[in-house]
Amino acid sequence: MTAQIASFDPGRTAVLSMDYQTAIVSMYAKDPDMLARAAGVLRRARSSGMQVIHVRVGFRPNLPEISARSSLFSAVKNSEKHRQIFEGPAGDIHPALAPEGNDIVVVKHRVSAFTGTDLDMILRANDIGTLILHGIATSGVVLATLLDAVDADYRTFVIGDCCEDREPEVHTCLVDKVFPHYSTLMTAADF
Amino acid sequence: MTAQIASFDPGRTAVLSMDYQTAIVSMYAKDPDMLARAAGVLRRARSSGMQVIHVRVGFRPNLPEISARSSLFSAVKNSEKHRQIFEGPAGDIHPALAPEGNDIVVVKHRVSAFTGTDLDMILRANDIGTLILHGIATSGVVLATLLDAVDADYRTFVIGDCCEDREPEVHTCLVDKVFPHYSTLMTAADF
Amino acid sequence: MTAQIASFDPGRTAVLSMDYQTAIVSMYAKDPDMLARAAGVLRRARSSGMQVIHVRVGFRPNLPEISARSSLFSAVKNSEKHRQIFEGPAGDIHPALAPEGNDIVVVKHRVSAFTGTDLDMILRANDIGTLILHGIATSGVVLATLLDAVDADYRTFVIGDCCEDREPEVHTCLVDKVFPHYSTLMTAADF
Amino acid sequence: MTAQIASFDPGRTAVLSMDYQTAIVSMYAKDPDMLARAAGVLRRARSSGMQVIHVRVGFRPNLPEISARSSLFSAVKNSEKHRQIFEGPAGDIHPALAPEGNDIVVVKHRVSAFTGTDLDMILRANDIGTLILHGIATSGVVLATLLDAVDADYRTFVIGDCCEDREPEVHTCLVDKVFPHYSTLMTAADF
Repeated sequence: MTAQIASFDPGRTAVLSMDYQTAIVSMYAKDPDMLARAAGVLRRARSSGMQVIHVRVGFRPNLPEISARSSLFSAVKNSEKHRQIFEGPAGDIHPALAPEGNDIVVVKHRVSAFTGTDLDMILRANDIGTLILHGIATSGVVLATLLDAVDADYRTFVIGDCCEDREPEVHTCLVDKVFPHYSTLMTAADF
Repeated sequence: MTAQIASFDPGRTAVLSMDYQTAIVSMYAKDPDMLARAAGVLRRARSSGMQVIHVRVGFRPNLPEISARSSLFSAVKNSEKHRQIFEGPAGDIHPALAPEGNDIVVVKHRVSAFTGTDLDMILRANDIGTLILHGIATSGVVLATLLDAVDADYRTFVIGDCCEDREPEVHTCLVDKVFPHYSTLMTAADF
Repeated sequence: MTAQIASFDPGRTAVLSMDYQTAIVSMYAKDPDMLARAAGVLRRARSSGMQVIHVRVGFRPNLPEISARSSLFSAVKNSEKHRQIFEGPAGDIHPALAPEGNDIVVVKHRVSAFTGTDLDMILRANDIGTLILHGIATSGVVLATLLDAVDADYRTFVIGDCCEDREPEVHTCLVDKVFPHYSTLMTAADF
Repeated sequence: MTAQIASFDPGRTAVLSMDYQTAIVSMYAKDPDMLARAAGVLRRARSSGMQVIHVRVGFRPNLPEISARSSLFSAVKNSEKHRQIFEGPAGDIHPALAPEGNDIVVVKHRVSAFTGTDLDMILRANDIGTLILHGIATSGVVLATLLDAVDADYRTFVIGDCCEDREPEVHTCLVDKVFPHYSTLMTAADF
C-alpha cells in the first residue's frame, strides 16, 4: 500500500467495483492482467477497512424495469440472446472479483449505479463521502456513475487501469481527458 | 367487479400491496377479515389485468441501509428483537397475500415505497399512471407512499378498509380527513 | 433561549419556515398570535447561528410545472382565482416572517419542500443534518416535508404551535399522534 | 425544416439549450457560426411547436448550493473571479440565444441539468418524452444531461455541431464515439 492510500479515511471511503460480470468481462476485457489488478484493489481495500460495494446489472423475470421505449435497453428485454448476458452464471460477478465478508452488492437496471438503486442511501447512512471507482465499461457504468457522484458532492477517484472499454481510443480519451476534470486518476499500483 | 373498476385502464394501473409481512400483520391487524378483503382485491386486480406490486421491508445482512443516526430505524439495526420482525418467515409477505404469477416485489428500507427503490422506474417503464394503495400501517407506508405518489403526479386511490394502524383514531383521521384531500377513497367492495 | 435549543449544533441545523405566504396565512391561520410566535422562532434561530430557509409555492408564467392530470394542482393551473393565491403580493412570504440577511428561499411546485427543488442539495452542501419545521398547512407542506426528511435521515423537530390546518381536528391528530412517531415535538416557547 | 424533424411529435418534444451563457460562450466557442446555427435550431423548434427549455448555471448570493468539499465547484464559491462568470450580464444567456415567448428557463447548480432542478418535473408534467440537446461544453452539461436523460428513459438526440468543448479532440471523441451509443446524432442542418 502506497503513501497515497494513507490519505483516505478508510471508514468514510468505498470502492465501487462495477459491472464485472462474467459475460461482460469476457466481451470487454482484453488485458489479461486487469482482473488480477482489480482483485488486488479489492483485497487492499478490505484490509484497510474501506467498504467494498459491488454493482451489477440484474433484472426480475420478464424485466419489468425496462421500458419498451428504451433504445438502449429494449434489446435486452426483447432478445433472448441479450438477456442471457445477465442471467445465471454469465450474469454473476466474475469469480476473481466475487463478494466476500462484509462487501455489499447493489443491483442496477440502468447505466449509472445511482439510478433507481439504494446506493446513495447506503453511502449516506454510512457517512461515506469518498468513492473509488473502477469497472467495465469506461464509457458506460464508470462514466455515468462518476458524473452522478460528482453532482452529488462525493469526492471521487478512478482507477484507470481497472477500467476497460470496447473501443480503446474511447477508454483513453475518457481516462486521459474527461475524467481528470471530475476526479483524481489513480492506477492499481498507486492504491 | 363493480362499475367503478371499469373506469380504470387496467394496463396503466397498479395495485400497491404494502408491508403486509407476517410479523407486521400480527402486530397491527385487528380486523380478522382484512386479509381476506385484501386478498380479494389482489385477485380481482390480477384478473382484470392490473399489475400487482408487493412492497416489503427488508435489509441486507448487518443492515448497511440504516444510519446509526436514524431515530426511526436505528432500533431495528441495533436490537435483535426488532430485527427479527423483518427476518425469515416473520418478514415474508403474509401467505394470504403472497406474490403470484407476474406480480412484482419491491424491497424497501425506509417508510415510503419510493425512497431508495426502483418503484418509480418500474411504474414509468410500464406507463403506469394510476396507483391503488393499501397496506399497514395507515400512518406509515400508506401515508408516506401516497404523498410521494401525489407529488410525482400519479393518480391515486386508497382502499381504506384494507389499511390498518396501531391506533384506530389515527387510521380514522387519516382515511376520513387527510387522504381525501390527496386521493380517491374506496372500499374493497367498491373494487 | 431555553436549555433545549442549546442542544442543537446551530451550524448544522436549519429552520424550515414553510408556505407562510400572505394569501395562505389569511385562509388558514386562525390563531392571531401564530405569526408572532413564528417570527420569534426565526429571530432566535438567526441569532443562534442556525440557517433559516423559507419554502414557498411559486410558478413560472403559465405554470409549466403543473400537469393537467394532477387532481391536486390542476385547479391552480386552470382557475384564475386559484392562481392568484400564488401571484404578486398574495403569494409573497407574509411580511411578519419575511426573509432577512442570509436566509435562503426555496421555491416549490408540489406539496413537499423536497420535490423538484434544490433543498436537499443545499442542506447537504452545508452539512445540515437537523431540521426544525413549521408552516401551513399541517396536513400539507409540514406533513409531506417531514416524511421526506425522515426518509432522508435528517433528524427532525416540529414546532407544533407554529403549524395550522384548515381543520383543527386534523392538526391535533397529526401533531399529537402522527408526528411524534417521526419527530420531536416542540413549542415556540421551548425553542 | 427537413423530413427528419417531421418524425418528431412536436407536442412531446423539447429542445434543451444548455449553458449558452455569455461568459461561457466567450471562453469555449471557437466556431463563429455556432451561435447562428443554434439560434436557427431554436427558431425552427419554436415554429414547429416544440418546447424550448434553456438551462443555465446560477446561484443565490453566497452560493449556498455549493459545498466547500466540492473539488469542481468550490473554486466558483471561493474565487471572486470564477464567480463573476455566472453573475450579471456575463452569466446571462447569450443574446443570440435568449429566451422568447413561451420558452422555459431552468437554473442549475451542478453539471447535469437534472441535478437539483425541476427539469424532470416539467418534462413529465407536459408529457415530453423526447429531448434534443445542445450546449457548452460537450464534456460538461451535454454529456451529463444526456446520460441522466437516457437513464430516465427519454428518447434523446444531440445536435453535434451546436456543442463545443475547450478541447476539440474531446468534443470529437464524445460526439463520434460515445454519444452515438446513447443517442441519435444530428446536425443543425438536419433539424
